Amino acid sequence: MNDFVFQNTTKVYFGKNQLGHLGEELSRFGRNVLLAYGGGSIKRIGLYDKVMAELAKAGMTVFELPGVEPNPRHTTVNKGAAICKKEGVDVVLAVGGGSTIDACKAIAATAKYDGDDSWDLVSGKASVSESLPLVAILTLAATGSEMDGGCVISNVETNEKNGYFPPDANPRASFLDPQNTFTVSAYQTASGSADIMSHIFDVAYFSRKDQMDMLLRVQEEVLKTVVKYAPVAVKDGSNYEARANLMWASSWALNGFLYEGFIQDTVCHSMEHELSAFYNITHGHGLAILTPRWLSYVLDENTAPRIKRFGENVLGIDPSLPLMEGAKAAIAALEKFFFETLGLKSRLSDLGIDDSKFAVMAKKACSFTGGKLDSFTVIQPNDVEAIYRMCL
Amino acid sequence: MNDFVFQNTTKVYFGKNQLGHLGEELSRFGRNVLLAYGGGSIKRIGLYDKVMAELAKAGMTVFELPGVEPNPRHTTVNKGAAICKKEGVDVVLAVGGGSTIDACKAIAATAKYDGDDSWDLVSGKASVSESLPLVAILTLAATGSEMDGGCVISNVETNEKNGYFPPDANPRASFLDPQNTFTVSAYQTASGSADIMSHIFDVAYFSRKDQMDMLLRVQEEVLKTVVKYAPVAVKDGSNYEARANLMWASSWALNGFLYEGFIQDTVCHSMEHELSAFYNITHGHGLAILTPRWLSYVLDENTAPRIKRFGENVLGIDPSLPLMEGAKAAIAALEKFFFETLGLKSRLSDLGIDDSKFAVMAKKACSFTGGKLDSFTVIQPNDVEAIYRMCL
Repeated sequence: MNDFVFQNTTKVYFGKNQLGHLGEELSRFGRNVLLAYGGGSIKRIGLYDKVMAELAKAGMTVFELPGVEPNPRHTTVNKGAAICKKEGVDVVLAVGGGSTIDACKAIAATAKYDGDDSWDLVSGKASVSESLPLVAILTLAATGSEMDGGCVISNVETNEKNGYFPPDANPRASFLDPQNTFTVSAYQTASGSADIMSHIFDVAYFSRKDQMDMLLRVQEEVLKTVVKYAPVAVKDGSNYEARANLMWASSWALNGFLYEGFIQDTVCHSMEHELSAFYNITHGHGLAILTPRWLSYVLDENTAPRIKRFGENVLGIDPSLPLMEGAKAAIAALEKFFFETLGLKSRLSDLGIDDSKFAVMAKKACSFTGGKLDSFTVIQPNDVEAIYRMCL
Repeated sequence: MNDFVFQNTTKVYFGKNQLGHLGEELSRFGRNVLLAYGGGSIKRIGLYDKVMAELAKAGMTVFELPGVEPNPRHTTVNKGAAICKKEGVDVVLAVGGGSTIDACKAIAATAKYDGDDSWDLVSGKASVSESLPLVAILTLAATGSEMDGGCVISNVETNEKNGYFPPDANPRASFLDPQNTFTVSAYQTASGSADIMSHIFDVAYFSRKDQMDMLLRVQEEVLKTVVKYAPVAVKDGSNYEARANLMWASSWALNGFLYEGFIQDTVCHSMEHELSAFYNITHGHGLAILTPRWLSYVLDENTAPRIKRFGENVLGIDPSLPLMEGAKAAIAALEKFFFETLGLKSRLSDLGIDDSKFAVMAKKACSFTGGKLDSFTVIQPNDVEAIYRMCL
């Protein structure tokens, strides 16, 4: 069992009637707000108008950054930071999914940077000691960015996608209204659900280290929550109960509640970041394709007990099966869940990806963590390449 | 499902080698610290010396308040607050269990009060707008005070025991080293474990309101954690795994992770507070005696499904039993757990309590919440009196 430090300061407003608190949460930081959002879905669902009404009520001056893209780019971050500097923005408001919130974390830091290029910060070439305060309104249950301090930013010029932890980057407040996810497509719901599960898998559940029993069991309950409610939300987008459970599960999966600190490399996330850096695919879909193949690749006498336990406790696999058979049944059930129940396509080739860049992506996937990925097992670039091939 | 607001700002240092961070956590607030503790067990286990060494290293000036009693008294709070005012204390350090931490929350508030008597604040006659910052080192897994903002203070002159939520009272940092609970007696371990379970029962689990499925399931996992590890710790006080699971469970039970806000009266806590106000018994033991009798009293067609589910999911009761039979088996299993497995005496009469004050206690138990206790069912003073009688 590890020693660990836990703190999560984000204030969460959860539910249907919370947006009335937006003004008080923003105006404590000043009057000038940068409002960032994505492709315009927040206008289609009427959220934009509601937010603007609250901002007007609070007497805020609004500067807008529309068009934050999926796998958000450092050039978009640069644009947002330039607005913050020029207009004297006091607080950043992200309205969207993980991409918008991630971009805003980098914007909030770059606004405090003497230079113009956020990639200096994201790549670790430079640093800042503080960020602008950030408030988030979540519209997609997936990344957990609404309640953590990290972001992932892409540089399309260099095909790089880096994780970055700006100073004090947790949203000061996050508004989680499940109704704001009612119109999320079946595909994005499925992909987001795979992302939630992968956070639990990657950060802690599939580990060769001992963990506190209580936390391991709670991880399983949150995983079971996704397994239960993702198919409901895929079929019936307006099911409040399903959307609420998925939304709070997305936050729990990465807000530190479930872990004794962060203790290992996030292996599937590292492999997937290269796929979306090179091919701009949907992150959660990439994770769904990779995870069961990774589990098959690392399956051996040492890893089988945890994989078998996962199958039994989360997916209802018969506990009386022998060890290796039970573990294989668990992996097969996970594939069935992602590729049949949730309807995600199962192959990288379905996403237009071939093997031409596997070698370079595999090397880069390991490059942030000393040339290997150390979690459930230790794997190296040749292993990553083999796993990519299993996904073709 | 309720709308709710979640925020818990306490920074938790969990594990064996964290005390080195004590100086940095205290010295950010100033140099003068009030060190409060209980009957001296922290000296017997060597913790006092370790704390003093860290305080010396950080250059802190230490003022001491020893002798904080179980069911801490407002007169003790007054003493601590007087020291804070006289010596210009910058930060309060509680080293102990829930009683010491609770007393320190009231001390930290009273230190900012113009008057001398903390009961003015605890009774709601006066208020303050801020508290001194508080840091805690926990030595007993029970009350959850290490990660919440409430305290319970007793007035022995008037036989009153009141809950109080001072402003900004969550500990800024809490140090949770399971080793500091190795010498907690079997009796206090059992009583503390009943307190942990009762927080989950009272605040959310036994409720007639709908709850988020994920949270209900996680409540069950934390309850199962106590059921699994309390007997281990009762038998083998130095079992790190058991002590660690119980310690983190105690925080989780009251830190807001498990709940959609606080949605109902805490029925067994309200009934028990009168018992310990009048008879100074151990809070957790009182809860263990009350809880199964309360469940029997409120058992009907409406409450039976949740009680039966509790039995199945937490205590391993056969799910194929008919509804009422399953619920009764669950209550019997909870009695067996408290009174046989954990070895707690099962009757108020075992604690020297007779029925002479039941009527006045029953009335007071309901007096903070409009003359009734509204949670799983609504009960009134005559019901409370009947439940007390079932416990004789």
